[in-house]
Amino acid sequence: LKASVALDELAIIDRYFRPLAGEGAFALKDDAARLHVPPGRDLVVTTDLVAEGVHFRPDDPPASIARKALRVNLSDLAAKAATPLAYTLAIAFGRRVDERWIESFAAGLRGDHERYGLTLLGGDTSAAGGPTMISIAAFGLAPRGGMAHRFGGRPGDLLFVTGMIGAAVAGLAILEGERFEGIDDAARAQLVARYREPEPPMRLASAIAEHASAAMDVSDGLVGDCDKLAAASECSAIIDAERVPLPLGLAHDVDIVSRLITGGDDYEILAAIPPSKAEAFRAAASAAGVAVAEIGTLTVGKERTEVRLRGRPLTLYRRAYIHLQADKR
Amino acid sequence: LKASVALDELAIIDRYFRPLAGEGAFALKDDAARLHVPPGRDLVVTTDLVAEGVHFRPDDPPASIARKALRVNLSDLAAKAATPLAYTLAIAFGRRVDERWIESFAAGLRGDHERYGLTLLGGDTSAAGGPTMISIAAFGLAPRGGMAHRFGGRPGDLLFVTGMIGAAVAGLAILEGERFEGIDDAARAQLVARYREPEPPMRLASAIAEHASAAMDVSDGLVGDCDKLAAASECSAIIDAERVPLPLGLAHDVDIVSRLITGGDDYEILAAIPPSKAEAFRAAASAAGVAVAEIGTLTVGKERTEVRLRGRPLTLYRRAYIHLQADKR
Repeated sequence: LKASVALDELAIIDRYFRPLAGEGAFALKDDAARLHVPPGRDLVVTTDLVAEGVHFRPDDPPASIARKALRVNLSDLAAKAATPLAYTLAIAFGRRVDERWIESFAAGLRGDHERYGLTLLGGDTSAAGGPTMISIAAFGLAPRGGMAHRFGGRPGDLLFVTGMIGAAVAGLAILEGERFEGIDDAARAQLVARYREPEPPMRLASAIAEHASAAMDVSDGLVGDCDKLAAASECSAIIDAERVPLPLGLAHDVDIVSRLITGGDDYEILAAIPPSKAEAFRAAASAAGVAVAEIGTLTVGKERTEVRLRGRPLTLYRRAYIHLQADKR
Repeated sequence: LKASVALDELAIIDRYFRPLAGEGAFALKDDAARLHVPPGRDLVVTTDLVAEGVHFRPDDPPASIARKALRVNLSDLAAKAATPLAYTLAIAFGRRVDERWIESFAAGLRGDHERYGLTLLGGDTSAAGGPTMISIAAFGLAPRGGMAHRFGGRPGDLLFVTGMIGAAVAGLAILEGERFEGIDDAARAQLVARYREPEPPMRLASAIAEHASAAMDVSDGLVGDCDKLAAASECSAIIDAERVPLPLGLAHDVDIVSRLITGGDDYEILAAIPPSKAEAFRAAASAAGVAVAEIGTLTVGKERTEVRLRGRPLTLYRRAYIHLQADKR
């Protein structure tokens, strides 16, 4: 490497990240930002990281990696009935990057700023070797006292899920060389696109605030995430797998269905809606342009979610993606 | 690996991180937290990451790694005149860890909760391979309108620095096998300890709020960081190297002095104080138990900081640790 062709951290920030800074970020020329919370609103904070080899692949387009890093956080905000506001960005680069990569990454962020009304508050970068890791803390605003939670669901509540489940995990399998019979290349490309760029249903936030007794984002696998919502709500749950919105052409095979509903990376919303509010929730979702499907119910009990396929219990060998295991002492 | 000896993510969170959760964190059983900003205060947000091989070493004690990950953020808060409140924690584990590692890491966090008045708001973990990376976003409270900035310094302001500069970079060199002549093993151990566990001068926050025209934390190297404060304040600066508080026994060698004042990892505070407030600032620092040293002045100009050693200009071959370089297009 010649010094003459290198762009250092300060030049990178100046050229590509400073234009993304918003109110309170002091043009990224300070050590910290000031975040203003308007009266009558609650500040909602979440953090999610994406890691190369886990959430994205080394050859994914940098703009897609940027969007995914942001959106895996935005889905948490929407599921809590919050509107996105701003975020901080920490990147540990695993390998030397070129300016083109950073320019494309920043362009991906910029597009989502416009799409979701976001600004960058601050960040940190490091070059550490190994897989690249991008960690975001995202901030949103919910109506005062109106934040949704995983807890609060009650037996009898209907379970709704947004969008499509399993597209991302199928897309990743395709990138890893798997061919799914019965779908064409255009369908495969759509699944890959969804793995690379989730589309969290941000416009559902107000319907969640108004109608949901409990809600969460679906990120680690629908079944395992439903277990978490049910447990936090001190309930059990039933999911009818044939009602789960799956990618067209993949629902014929029970093993594939099992993978799709436990694979993760969906960044959709699972919501518990009291039956009395179901019609209003459907109408609000429709008005917001968000597809929702009723897939099951919360039930009395403490067991894990029972998944049925055409009325018969479906045996699952895993329930969700497990991010971390440690050896016991 | 046998499944019977593995502890999964949920069990790890339940056992080691849930006890660290504070108000608004919903016992880490939700997707996001709610952060309350009391009336009359401003919320200050910062993010810094630490990466294995850059900020800590694989064999560092896990409790030290936890403290360092937190404290590199806390120094930013103190430098902005903010009192620590809470943080989010994202960890990408590079290798399989055991329960003992996590227990010790969590104990390190817990000790700093008590020491600094912190709580954990939420987090995310992943197992990605490569070096372990820990990214924290930290939240603090400043008096309304009282946040300090890098900008605001004026020519004639006196430059003060807290604590000691260069101990961490010397400690790292010792860990890498360097012996510094003229110091004993006890002194070496102290330098290593400072590399592993910075001690940001948190109690200086109110003196900064009251007396500083500009302030920042010293994290990438005193000289380079002084360049940043001076540039943000549209000034130049002079530092007298012999007035910089350096580790005992290392100030005799001009090459070592150069390394100490440009090496980084200090997590001290550099503050610009108008001469009329210098006495009051010294008294406030003394009352807070924080050692401060006057090391130079802001001057008229746009040049980088002039460093003098016993009255003669000191030529430096680098000014700070550079975290990231990218290849130009």
